[in-house]
Amino acid sequence: MDLQATLDRISREVRPLLSEGQVAAYIPELAKVPREQFAMAVTTLDGQVYRTGCADQPFSIQSISKLFAVTRAFQLHGDDLWKRMGREPSGTPFNSLVQLEYERGKPRNPLINAGALVVTDILCGSFDPVEAEVVAFMRRLCGNESISYDVDVAQSELATAARNRALANLIKSFGNLDHPTETVIRAYVRQCAIAMSAVDLSRAICFLAHRGTQPFTGEVILDGSSARRLSALMLTCGTYDAAGDFAYRVGLPAKSGVGGGIVAHVPGEMGICVWSPGLSESGNSLAGWRALELFTTYTSRSIF
Amino acid sequence: MDLQATLDRISREVRPLLSEGQVAAYIPELAKVPREQFAMAVTTLDGQVYRTGCADQPFSIQSISKLFAVTRAFQLHGDDLWKRMGREPSGTPFNSLVQLEYERGKPRNPLINAGALVVTDILCGSFDPVEAEVVAFMRRLCGNESISYDVDVAQSELATAARNRALANLIKSFGNLDHPTETVIRAYVRQCAIAMSAVDLSRAICFLAHRGTQPFTGEVILDGSSARRLSALMLTCGTYDAAGDFAYRVGLPAKSGVGGGIVAHVPGEMGICVWSPGLSESGNSLAGWRALELFTTYTSRSIF
Amino acid sequence: MDLQATLDRISREVRPLLSEGQVAAYIPELAKVPREQFAMAVTTLDGQVYRTGCADQPFSIQSISKLFAVTRAFQLHGDDLWKRMGREPSGTPFNSLVQLEYERGKPRNPLINAGALVVTDILCGSFDPVEAEVVAFMRRLCGNESISYDVDVAQSELATAARNRALANLIKSFGNLDHPTETVIRAYVRQCAIAMSAVDLSRAICFLAHRGTQPFTGEVILDGSSARRLSALMLTCGTYDAAGDFAYRVGLPAKSGVGGGIVAHVPGEMGICVWSPGLSESGNSLAGWRALELFTTYTSRSIF
Amino acid sequence: MDLQATLDRISREVRPLLSEGQVAAYIPELAKVPREQFAMAVTTLDGQVYRTGCADQPFSIQSISKLFAVTRAFQLHGDDLWKRMGREPSGTPFNSLVQLEYERGKPRNPLINAGALVVTDILCGSFDPVEAEVVAFMRRLCGNESISYDVDVAQSELATAARNRALANLIKSFGNLDHPTETVIRAYVRQCAIAMSAVDLSRAICFLAHRGTQPFTGEVILDGSSARRLSALMLTCGTYDAAGDFAYRVGLPAKSGVGGGIVAHVPGEMGICVWSPGLSESGNSLAGWRALELFTTYTSRSIF
Repeated sequence: MDLQATLDRISREVRPLLSEGQVAAYIPELAKVPREQFAMAVTTLDGQVYRTGCADQPFSIQSISKLFAVTRAFQLHGDDLWKRMGREPSGTPFNSLVQLEYERGKPRNPLINAGALVVTDILCGSFDPVEAEVVAFMRRLCGNESISYDVDVAQSELATAARNRALANLIKSFGNLDHPTETVIRAYVRQCAIAMSAVDLSRAICFLAHRGTQPFTGEVILDGSSARRLSALMLTCGTYDAAGDFAYRVGLPAKSGVGGGIVAHVPGEMGICVWSPGLSESGNSLAGWRALELFTTYTSRSIF
Repeated sequence: MDLQATLDRISREVRPLLSEGQVAAYIPELAKVPREQFAMAVTTLDGQVYRTGCADQPFSIQSISKLFAVTRAFQLHGDDLWKRMGREPSGTPFNSLVQLEYERGKPRNPLINAGALVVTDILCGSFDPVEAEVVAFMRRLCGNESISYDVDVAQSELATAARNRALANLIKSFGNLDHPTETVIRAYVRQCAIAMSAVDLSRAICFLAHRGTQPFTGEVILDGSSARRLSALMLTCGTYDAAGDFAYRVGLPAKSGVGGGIVAHVPGEMGICVWSPGLSESGNSLAGWRALELFTTYTSRSIF
Repeated sequence: MDLQATLDRISREVRPLLSEGQVAAYIPELAKVPREQFAMAVTTLDGQVYRTGCADQPFSIQSISKLFAVTRAFQLHGDDLWKRMGREPSGTPFNSLVQLEYERGKPRNPLINAGALVVTDILCGSFDPVEAEVVAFMRRLCGNESISYDVDVAQSELATAARNRALANLIKSFGNLDHPTETVIRAYVRQCAIAMSAVDLSRAICFLAHRGTQPFTGEVILDGSSARRLSALMLTCGTYDAAGDFAYRVGLPAKSGVGGGIVAHVPGEMGICVWSPGLSESGNSLAGWRALELFTTYTSRSIF
Repeated sequence: MDLQATLDRISREVRPLLSEGQVAAYIPELAKVPREQFAMAVTTLDGQVYRTGCADQPFSIQSISKLFAVTRAFQLHGDDLWKRMGREPSGTPFNSLVQLEYERGKPRNPLINAGALVVTDILCGSFDPVEAEVVAFMRRLCGNESISYDVDVAQSELATAARNRALANLIKSFGNLDHPTETVIRAYVRQCAIAMSAVDLSRAICFLAHRGTQPFTGEVILDGSSARRLSALMLTCGTYDAAGDFAYRVGLPAKSGVGGGIVAHVPGEMGICVWSPGLSESGNSLAGWRALELFTTYTSRSIF
C-alpha cells in the first residue's frame, strides 16, 4: 500500500462533501473559518509523515483537547479519576444537562463537556494556569514549540459559554467542582482554543498507538495498559453521540472537535489527523469522518 | 365560627410537628433559624387581623416572593409574559434542569426557580435595582414601610447559588435571558431574602382574595379576571412538586417558600399566612401545611 | 343572568372553531365521528336543565370515565387508593411511560391512562365485569337506564391499544397490577367506550358540586370532604398536560376525554358538560374548552 | 504463552468471586441455577479448544442470542436494518422504555431488548417459527446438532415477560413492529432460552474473529467488512450499560447474557466464552467479566 497515494485519492473523493457540512456557529470566531478546506496527515511510528491538503495550517482543536487533558490528569491521578466521573458513553448530546442531573453531578465520561470541566478542575489543583500546562504538554508531544492557544477564539468562546457555565454550576451544586466556576471555565475555553495543524496532531497522538510511549522522544506518557484503556475510552466516547456509528463505520479509536478536526490512531502503526470545518448534525467533521472511513477501507485497517 | 379560637386550637394541635421537619440547610444563613417556631395570621377583607404564635416576627419569605414578582410583571406585560414561560405544573422538583433542557429554556411556570429567574429578568428591563421595586411593592401592599431584605441571607444565598446559576445560564444558552446572569441572580436572591411577618403577608395577599383590589387602600393591583388567573396558577403550581397533594388536602390557592412560610387566601373572604421553619421532603413547611389543612377542615373553607 | 341565553350565545360564538380541531385519529371508530358538532348542557342543583346543540346525542365519553371509575374505587377503598398511585399532575402527555418508569410503576394520578389502568385493576378485585359496574353507576347517577358502552368503539380501541398495553405491562413489571393485563385492558376500553349525552353527563357530575350527594336522588356518593378532594384532583390533573392552562383560563374542576367531551362543575351550583369532537393539540375539545371559558366569563363563575 | 495454563490460573483466581454475584432472579427458572459455577473455553481459529471448569455444560444463553439473531437478520437485509433501529450505545439500562419513547419507537441498537425485539420481528417476516431458524443457525455454527432451547426456561420467561411486553407494545404503538406482539414475544423468549455450552459458544463466535467466515466449515457468514462492523457494535453496545467500562477493562468485542455467559473474540486469533451465573449490578457475569479481564492481561490481547 502506498500511503501517500491513498491520502491523495481520499482528498479527491471527499471534495464534494466540503460544501455540505455546517461550520460551528455558536462560537462567533469559529464561524468565520472558511468551510471548504480539507487536511489529512498520517505519522507512522517510525516517524514518516504523509500529508494532503492544508496539513500544516493550524486550526482550533476544541474538544480534541479533552483527550490530552484527561491523559495529563490520568498521569497524575490514575484510576482515582473515576471517583469523579464515569467512563460510559452518554447516549445524549455532548452538552446535555439531563443525565448530569439524574446522576447527581457525576459526568458520564471525560470526553464530553461535563467531564472535561471536571478534568480541568482536577488540573487546576496542580497547575496555574492550566492552559499553559496543556499547551506545554502538546508542544512536548509534537516537538513544536510554536503551539499556543488563540486568544480571539478563547475570548469569543468565553463570551458565549452560557451552556458550559450551566454545566459547571450544576456540577458545582453537587459538590463535584473544587475551584471557582469562572476559573475552570476560563482554563477550559483556553485549552479548547489551542491551535494545531493536522501534522502536529497526527504526531501528538502516536504515544497511544505505541503503548503509551511517544516513539520520537522515548518519553513514557502512560504505561501500556493505561494507553489501551484511554484508546478504549476514545472508541466508546470520543465522537459525541455518534460513537457507535463511528466505531461501526470507521473502527478506530478517535476524538473529534467542533473545530472540524478528528484525531485517530491505528494501534501499533500510526497516528492520524483529519480536518475539515464543515460539521454533520452529530457535530463531527463531515469530510473528516468520511476520509477516515475511506482510509480504513482502502488500507484494510480496523481494530476489529 | 370564632376565627381566633380556631387559630388557637390549630396552634396547639400542630405543636408536635414542630420538631419533625428539617430547616432548609442549603442556605447557611437560613440553617441557623431555630426550628421550633410557629406563626399564623388571618386578615379578613374588612381588615380584622387574627393571629397566633410569633405572627409579628419577620422571616425570610424566599419563594413566596415569586408570587409578588410575577404579579408586578403581570401588571406591566399581561399575557405577553407567557411568551417566555408556561403556566403548567412542572411535575419535577423546583430546581430541576431536565424539563428546562427538553423544553429549550422556556420554564414551565413563574413559580418555580427557572420561571422566577425569567420574571426577574423581565423586571430588570423596567427597574434598577429590581429588588428595591419588589420591596416597595410589598411595603405598599402591607402598609408597612419597615419591610426590607436581609443582607446576610442574600449574601449567604449568593455564595451558594450554583444551582440557580446553572438554571440561569441554561436559560441564557437558549436566548431566554436578556440581562447578564449575575445581574439577574443578584436581584433574585435579594428578592428572596425579603423578611416579612405572617401578619404582613396575610395582609399583602388580600388583593387576590378581593378580585385584584387591595381592600385597605383601594389600589387596583390587577383586574378581577387576572387576579383569578394568578390564583389558579397558585393552586396548580404554588407548592412545588406537591401542588396536587396540597390542592387535595387543603384546597386553597397558596404559595410556599423554603423559609417555612406559606401564603394562601379564601376568595372573597381573607388572606392567610402560616410560618414554621421545619420543612417536609417536598420543601413545604410541615407544620404550616398541617395548620392550613386543619383551618379548611375546621372552617369548612375550600374553593371546591 | 339568563343561563339559556348564555348557552345560546356561546353556541353561536364557538361556531368558527368547529372546523379547526382534529378528531382523535388513533381510534378508527372515533375517527368516523363528524367533526362539526357542538353540544352544551347545564344542570343546576335544583334540577333545571339548560341545553344547546345536540345535547341529547350520546358520544363516546372516553377519559371522562376515569373520573367516575376513580369515584367508585374511592367509595370502596378511600385513601388506600394512594398506596398505588399519586395525586400529582404529571407534567407529561397522558400516555407517557417515562415518568412511570422513573417512579417504578406508580402512576402520577388516577386521571391519566396509567393511573386509570390501576383503578380498573382495583375495581377488577370487586366486580366482574368491571365495565358493567361502571355502566350501572353512570345509569344511577343520571337516572337513565339506556346508558351502555359502544361495542364497535370498544372493539376498535382494543385493536389499537398498543400504547395502553405498554403502560399496563410496565405497571405489571413493577408489581402494581394484580389481574391479567388483557383483563384490565378489556374492562378499561369498554369503560372508555361508554356513550352518554351532554345532558346525561351534566347530571352525573352534580354530586361533586353538591358535596358528594346526588341532589336528585339523595344518594350519598361521597362525604363532603372526599367530594372536594376529587374536585381538587380534577382541577390539577383533569385536562391532561394542559391542566394549568385550563385552571388559568376556565377556573373550574373538569375532566376531558378524547371523544371531545368535557365535564365540569360550579361548586354549590351546577354540573356542566360540553361536547365537540375536534381536539386541540393538548387532546382537549377545542370548541368545548372555549365554551367553558366563555361560560365562566359571561356568568362570572370561577372557584377562584 | 500456554493458553491452557492461563485458563487454569484464571479459574483459580476467580474462585472467590463465585459467591458474590446474584443469579438473575426475575426469571424463576434461571433463579434455580446454582451460583457457584464457572466455565471458560477458548477456540483458536485453527480449531484448538482450551477449556476449564464445566465448559461442556449447557447454560441459558439469554441475550447472547441477540448477537446471532442480528447476524442472521444482517445476512438477509444488510444496512436496511438500520432503518428500524440505531447502532448507538443506549446509556440506559437494557430494558428501559424512556429512550424508546423519546426516540419514537426506534431502539438504540439491536443488542438491547427493544432492538432485539425488532430483530425478531424482522426475522418473523422470513421464518416460522423464528426460534427454529436461530437454533438451526447455532447448530451450524457449532457443528453441534443437539443444541435446542429449554422449554421450561422459555415458559418461565413467557410468564414473567411484562417488561418485554411493555417494550414490544410501545414499539408497536409507533408502528415499528409488524407482527402480533405475542408472536414476537414468544419467538424472542424461546431464542433467549437456547442452551449451549461454553465450548459451543467459543466455537460459534469464531466467524467474527475470522472476517466473517466460519473457519471450521468455510461457510461465509458475512463479508469481512460486515463482520468488523458487528464486532464494533459488540464493543459499544454488547454489555448493557457497562460497555464503556468493559471496553476499558477488557478491550475485546463481547456480548453478555443474564444467564451468566459472555462471548468475546480476539480478531484474527480466537473465540472465547466464559460462564458463571452470578451477576454484578450491571447484569453481567461477575466472575466471567473478571476472567476476561485477567485473560487480556495475561495474554496481552486487546484490540487497542
